Amino acid sequence: METPHRRDYLNITVQVEQCLAESGISEGLVLVNAMHITSSVFINDDESGLHKDFEAWLERLAPEKPHSQYRHNGFEDNADAHMKRQLMGREVVVAVTGGRLDFGPWEQIFYGEYDGMRRKRVLVKIIGE
Amino acid sequence: METPHRRDYLNITVQVEQCLAESGISEGLVLVNAMHITSSVFINDDESGLHKDFEAWLERLAPEKPHSQYRHNGFEDNADAHMKRQLMGREVVVAVTGGRLDFGPWEQIFYGEYDGMRRKRVLVKIIGE
Amino acid sequence: METPHRRDYLNITVQVEQCLAESGISEGLVLVNAMHITSSVFINDDESGLHKDFEAWLERLAPEKPHSQYRHNGFEDNADAHMKRQLMGREVVVAVTGGRLDFGPWEQIFYGEYDGMRRKRVLVKIIGE
Repeated sequence: METPHRRDYLNITVQVEQCLAESGISEGLVLVNAMHITSSVFINDDESGLHKDFEAWLERLAPEKPHSQYRHNGFEDNADAHMKRQLMGREVVVAVTGGRLDFGPWEQIFYGEYDGMRRKRVLVKIIGE
Repeated sequence: METPHRRDYLNITVQVEQCLAESGISEGLVLVNAMHITSSVFINDDESGLHKDFEAWLERLAPEKPHSQYRHNGFEDNADAHMKRQLMGREVVVAVTGGRLDFGPWEQIFYGEYDGMRRKRVLVKIIGE
Repeated sequence: METPHRRDYLNITVQVEQCLAESGISEGLVLVNAMHITSSVFINDDESGLHKDFEAWLERLAPEKPHSQYRHNGFEDNADAHMKRQLMGREVVVAVTGGRLDFGPWEQIFYGEYDGMRRKRVLVKIIGE
């Protein structure tokens, strides 16, 4: 992943479905997690208004600025990103049934970036048979 | 699930235990997740005072009204429910040991509803042997 | 676990790695969860400034005092700890690849205590082959 903005949301459902298809697993669990501690993987709605609401809401609960309000921000300026990631979560675990992600009607998997503009990775681990 | 109020908490531990008993699995993992993006599955205390505290606290961190404060609320009025669900979580993963949910003394599984009064579903997936 | 303060953070990555080594499992998943409902297991950065930021931030979002603000606090005084645990999470699920925790560069596992000074337990469950 590399997002053009400090904070962004990417729908990664199709990529996870591709991993699942390649695995050949039909019954089991998929773990999808951010490998970085200033980003999230979560499941919610693919609606751009909601993502703007998330942006404003997370800025209210864990504001980025002033950077000096956080002890973590000596050489860093991303303490807020560590907090936003806690609110949105590191990982999701999804059931695999009949070779497919066993989802409700609106569930989509997102990568939430809170300290972007550099390369980051997401891990997909699939277990089952 | 169908709750009589917009927001509610249901203890679903017994139903998950029934699923586990039917599965015949004695060692493994249980995934329990909301299949809807305005509700949660989480583990906490079965104490009605605490659930009222959760209600007041979530309303403070992600208030429902005014509905117009959220961009998601064009045709919808449930942006707050998408946020409350992020705070409380989508899913829990519980260890199965000796055919039972491997719980600490007070752990109970709850369905947290933030946009209720309609039918919703919870998924229970059990893997192991 | 037993922490000397009401709230504290302990890096438990080495203990989880020891459990994994003893299991002999090389491909699978590890579940690590708090067995108590006033503490968390989460993955973030091992940086003491950030942990002080977490302390101040959680006190802002879910303040301990006055105890009387919470209905849960009749015989108890720990309603805030139940909320802090929801924000930080109960559990993590980590991929096991080649016999090791499949981590990004800065991921470390922490036990977050919000109502300490007494003995508590963490569960580690490893499945795979």
